[in-house]
Amino acid sequence: MFNDFQLMDDRPVSIQVKEYVKRLIIKGALQANQKLPSTRELSTLLGISRNSIISAYEGLEDDGFAYTVHGRGSYVAAASTGAAASSAWRLDWGARMNERAQMAVELDLMKRGIRAEKGTISFTSIAPDEKLFDLDNVKRAFMDRMSVEGNVLLNYGYAKGYKPLIDYLLRYMDHKGVDLKGKDLLITNGFTEGFDIVLSALSKKNGSVICENPTHNTAIKNLKLHGFEITGIAMERDGINLQELEQALSEKAFDCAYFVPSYHNPTGIVMSPEKRQRLMQLMMRYQVPVIEDGFNEELRYSGSHVSPLMATAGQGNSVIYLGSFSKVLFPGLRVGWVLADRELIDYLESIKRARSIHTSTLDQSILYQYLYNGNLEKYLKKARTEYKRKYEWTKQCCEAHIPFEQLSGDGGLHLFVAFEEGFDTRALLEACSRQGVIFTPGDIFFTKDGQGRNTMRIGFSRVADEEIGRGIRIIGEAAKQLRG
Amino acid sequence: MFNDFQLMDDRPVSIQVKEYVKRLIIKGALQANQKLPSTRELSTLLGISRNSIISAYEGLEDDGFAYTVHGRGSYVAAASTGAAASSAWRLDWGARMNERAQMAVELDLMKRGIRAEKGTISFTSIAPDEKLFDLDNVKRAFMDRMSVEGNVLLNYGYAKGYKPLIDYLLRYMDHKGVDLKGKDLLITNGFTEGFDIVLSALSKKNGSVICENPTHNTAIKNLKLHGFEITGIAMERDGINLQELEQALSEKAFDCAYFVPSYHNPTGIVMSPEKRQRLMQLMMRYQVPVIEDGFNEELRYSGSHVSPLMATAGQGNSVIYLGSFSKVLFPGLRVGWVLADRELIDYLESIKRARSIHTSTLDQSILYQYLYNGNLEKYLKKARTEYKRKYEWTKQCCEAHIPFEQLSGDGGLHLFVAFEEGFDTRALLEACSRQGVIFTPGDIFFTKDGQGRNTMRIGFSRVADEEIGRGIRIIGEAAKQLRG
Repeated sequence: MFNDFQLMDDRPVSIQVKEYVKRLIIKGALQANQKLPSTRELSTLLGISRNSIISAYEGLEDDGFAYTVHGRGSYVAAASTGAAASSAWRLDWGARMNERAQMAVELDLMKRGIRAEKGTISFTSIAPDEKLFDLDNVKRAFMDRMSVEGNVLLNYGYAKGYKPLIDYLLRYMDHKGVDLKGKDLLITNGFTEGFDIVLSALSKKNGSVICENPTHNTAIKNLKLHGFEITGIAMERDGINLQELEQALSEKAFDCAYFVPSYHNPTGIVMSPEKRQRLMQLMMRYQVPVIEDGFNEELRYSGSHVSPLMATAGQGNSVIYLGSFSKVLFPGLRVGWVLADRELIDYLESIKRARSIHTSTLDQSILYQYLYNGNLEKYLKKARTEYKRKYEWTKQCCEAHIPFEQLSGDGGLHLFVAFEEGFDTRALLEACSRQGVIFTPGDIFFTKDGQGRNTMRIGFSRVADEEIGRGIRIIGEAAKQLRG
Repeated sequence: MFNDFQLMDDRPVSIQVKEYVKRLIIKGALQANQKLPSTRELSTLLGISRNSIISAYEGLEDDGFAYTVHGRGSYVAAASTGAAASSAWRLDWGARMNERAQMAVELDLMKRGIRAEKGTISFTSIAPDEKLFDLDNVKRAFMDRMSVEGNVLLNYGYAKGYKPLIDYLLRYMDHKGVDLKGKDLLITNGFTEGFDIVLSALSKKNGSVICENPTHNTAIKNLKLHGFEITGIAMERDGINLQELEQALSEKAFDCAYFVPSYHNPTGIVMSPEKRQRLMQLMMRYQVPVIEDGFNEELRYSGSHVSPLMATAGQGNSVIYLGSFSKVLFPGLRVGWVLADRELIDYLESIKRARSIHTSTLDQSILYQYLYNGNLEKYLKKARTEYKRKYEWTKQCCEAHIPFEQLSGDGGLHLFVAFEEGFDTRALLEACSRQGVIFTPGDIFFTKDGQGRNTMRIGFSRVADEEIGRGIRIIGEAAKQLRG
């Protein structure tokens, strides 16, 4: 015994010795009331200073693993030993999972996606380019906030969110032209939690939701997980097809609609201001509330300003706006927000509290201080310039090399390519991945299985210019070959 | 116009001017294609340097709110104006909330609790005392980690969690005697999210759960929200009553059990090692899986070590362990973990991803670095000493002043008081709050309405010694008066 001890990590030696002896006790190698070696003996055995051993034994006693008999030494405490490991019962957890858990795994693309091996040119991500991150400003925001109220930040916060950030975001939304009267704001762990909380609160009178087709895959997943039937409406060059939308609205009742008006995922289309107005008039006429995904709104780097749908709704309370800086600033800070009718937010707040008490106060306070320090504008200026350049370069490459039928994307972090009907982008992906290039096949964004097999999304935010050129050329050549 | 401009915050002046003009445009005070004042004019009107105005106009153009006609000046962009605020549609959100959302509000104690006014002595909290927080070590952990991989921390992480922290926690649980073979670990936003995710995955074959009575109120709430019927088993001095438990197990099938073996909330009882063994044998015999709440296990500052139930289960896979340092270290860092059978964790990971993508990487990495820097042991030593002192002082005060029938609590951050049947702690609370003292009435911890009306929880962690003395005396006197 005691011959397999190894110093392993950076923790104090005495703690490592304590933990080592503790494990021997728990695993039964040392029995209850057995005498431990003297501190001198163990010091020699382990080749460690006697002071460290003495301190380790004190720690064992503190933790209730040992007791001292005066003048005789240390002994293993009685109650600390022996696990009833013998009659281990093993159950089949898969059989105990409900339908929703099964579905969550089935719809979990991260478990079925293609993994990028080292050296692969990957167009699958639409996360921001971390080379743009202004780490020093983030560090400063943290230190600033900690020095103001570190003790407060590290203790419990409020389910609704960190007050200074809530106030900041209300002003921020006010600046976007949203009428705040009768509205309130809830901070969530990013867009996804906000969306999930909203869906978990809505009653399923009709059990159906209407949205753009294609649309954000996580939204499709969560709508399905919440048991909603999805009606997808085709996209046109300037956003959702309003004729088709009105047709669907007149045929069936919907519990709500989900729209991504800016840099729509995956098509990259920004809905025109005129269409926004007409869309909201339609939704009002058919009395369908709207969940607006404010996705990447901040990234617009060309064209004129367009207000969120929520601004268009004026004093109406039928729009639930989901905001996030994830794609714009830092996805690692899990902070998003729900701006909506005050009564609704009151319900959502209670659900949020039941689910996770509150969003990380540190994340919220760092984001707040970062914004308060005036970094957003500067950062956006830099990010827009960089992404605009990349967008134009990627578009140029696509136009030069890919034999597409349609190319869309008004900026943002991705482009969307459609080939002629019958073309199979899954086969294209297979061919490309053999040459070290991957992208996202478009079918996963469609509301019905089998749709969009001729489409693909190209995320360029994290790919270097040279690789964009090389990667798009490879995709183009493979596509030409596939068509023969 | 332009006469209501005010410099309001610390942001650059040019940005404040830009935002101000933007709002005039969005709200319709400036019309499409209207000429903006010259930079010189506006500089005079607002009393702000011309450079700031020039920079503000550039910003407006960048954002699509204005355009320049060469040699003539700046104009309001056409597409940026006008919200269709006229025909605002207002809907009744309350009528669109489902049963679960209604229930979440009803069961939301934070919305019905007594608010502590300034100067009140509040025994309602069992959050840690923030005066103990070692802020410098937290700051150091942040700076250390940011310098190692700041870019990685701020971009997307993994649903399962931050790898270094997962590995650290696996070792940590190994040291507690848990057999890790076939097990895996998922990081969550604290205990609550872990519990909620587990409940959302379990199939409701029987629709019923068994647990201690009283028990953690958030657990009761979430069990109800997930539609489980709850069978509560009474507590004895050393933990759950095993006879009563076996009786219940033999009469009915349960989908799972929920236990808080250490510093049980609200009774403060630590289940004896012998009882843990016998409890696990019972659960094995009746084939009921166990959700173990590792609540405050780290705080034990007296008595001998007791292994978690999961260690007792050895190689079995029937225990789901929910861990958190919230009450021990910093509740503001929303980090907890689920340690369980690998297959189960795979399901939970997909649910976690669907709900919130992943837990804040910053929180996880700060916690990891804080632990890695060896702060936990030192901090626990300090915290245990402090809480032990407070515990003993509170207990002494209770024994001196409160005419209880039973007092329990083996340490931790709270004590539990039971008066004779028929005594009403809600009436006691009313009397005490008039004298500036509040506590948590015990009924909220009981699984059936109307139970425990003669009980109360006294959380002492955040109350100063002098106030503990004064507050308990007031409670004691009010109790004596109430009994007449």
